[in-house]
Amino acid sequence: MAPHGDESGAAEEATVVGAEKRPISTIVILIAMQTEALPVVNRFQLVEDQNSLFPKGVPWVRYYGTYKDLNINLIWPGKDPSFGVDSVGTISASLVTYASIQALQPDLIINAGTAGGFKAKGASISDVFLASEVAFHDRRIPIPVFDLYGVGLRPAFSTPNLVKELNLKVGKLSTGDSLDMSQQDEATIFANDATIKDMEGAAVAYVADILKVPAIFVKAVTDIVDGDKPTAEEFLQNLAAVTAALDQTVCQVVEFVNGKCLADL
Amino acid sequence: MAPHGDESGAAEEATVVGAEKRPISTIVILIAMQTEALPVVNRFQLVEDQNSLFPKGVPWVRYYGTYKDLNINLIWPGKDPSFGVDSVGTISASLVTYASIQALQPDLIINAGTAGGFKAKGASISDVFLASEVAFHDRRIPIPVFDLYGVGLRPAFSTPNLVKELNLKVGKLSTGDSLDMSQQDEATIFANDATIKDMEGAAVAYVADILKVPAIFVKAVTDIVDGDKPTAEEFLQNLAAVTAALDQTVCQVVEFVNGKCLADL
Repeated sequence: MAPHGDESGAAEEATVVGAEKRPISTIVILIAMQTEALPVVNRFQLVEDQNSLFPKGVPWVRYYGTYKDLNINLIWPGKDPSFGVDSVGTISASLVTYASIQALQPDLIINAGTAGGFKAKGASISDVFLASEVAFHDRRIPIPVFDLYGVGLRPAFSTPNLVKELNLKVGKLSTGDSLDMSQQDEATIFANDATIKDMEGAAVAYVADILKVPAIFVKAVTDIVDGDKPTAEEFLQNLAAVTAALDQTVCQVVEFVNGKCLADL
Repeated sequence: MAPHGDESGAAEEATVVGAEKRPISTIVILIAMQTEALPVVNRFQLVEDQNSLFPKGVPWVRYYGTYKDLNINLIWPGKDPSFGVDSVGTISASLVTYASIQALQPDLIINAGTAGGFKAKGASISDVFLASEVAFHDRRIPIPVFDLYGVGLRPAFSTPNLVKELNLKVGKLSTGDSLDMSQQDEATIFANDATIKDMEGAAVAYVADILKVPAIFVKAVTDIVDGDKPTAEEFLQNLAAVTAALDQTVCQVVEFVNGKCLADL
């Protein structure tokens, strides 16, 4: 069995190396909220897919189009069928990541969205960060090894040239399904050494990792978690303005990605 | 547009009613932990699917076989590829629910597993509950309507005859990604009026709901959350013994389901 295993491993490695040296062709941009997604849709003049790639019943929406040499797919998980609000959080994020990879076989996933930032770690409102690592802060399983599974620390795909060219701030991202932050969340976010906090990133990273698709995380700060304003209020106040900063950076990222191989990012 | 919408709605309703009156043919049993799954696999002499229905890379395992008039598929999310532990929690649960429905089009989903129980609500170790409702307790989004989306309260598929025949305890189930319980979790679990607490149920319910597949939840109590023993310790101590009670009840449920229509459950 060993030689077979070795050959198959070598073949797989060759494919990955091959992909890294081939120009990026198809990208998936995952954005959880409509307010965050629409400026990017408009900027690239993407159109909504009327014949959904996704099964009947799911609220997920694909906007697509081409920009220079890129096939762009922006996936928004849509409005929850029961409650009518954006399908935020890790479950929808993981499902759309999975279904998008199955349907579109993208070369790269860009998860973009808003986030809370920690001023103690250097974040300010409207900063746009590229995440270096992602992890969860609300999956506490105090059994050896399960504890590490719960945290699910993963590196983002490394893009040193992109960071340099766009002069982006870089920080660690911590993900949880709550907009607020409990004491337990705070302790784990601190242990995760996170500068930014969102509700989707680590879920996207998990699915992208098991399906071997590189993923990067572009997150714009709407609220200061360790500040004196209530998160929900500050988030809603800044959402529209910060979305403009996010849109601009996502467009710069797409522009930078165009014509390049994964290895050049 | 209205007449078309009406017709399509009526057609859909007719299909659902049709399904409710047709004998149940294919079931999916979702079980998060191998220790919980293997007794059921052995009992029904299910075999592991060597040509996975699922994409390369995912650790999900399907065991299948027939029992009387039923096609049984037991799906276990498998060992995490990075950490080697069972892929517990809502993200894996939602992904396998989605992928199983897509691949197998089951008539019924049975999510079985262990759970914590609240003695104040009448739960004891080894009790097996059928959930009447499921909700999340760790998705706090304090913005109007988003708060309800976060809690995600859903009824389980109603099975009054099954409850009566098997003399099962019935209680509300609350789901979160942590094995322990923070103060915030506790407050939401209390608001959810839950008797049992698990790490998958509400995620399975969410996906089953959007894809319109009926789902029921069979949960055996391994630990008393409002007792004096640490949850992780009590959980590990009781896991093997309680799994026997769970196995027995799952088998009784399958036996009861066999030859019946959804409407007879």
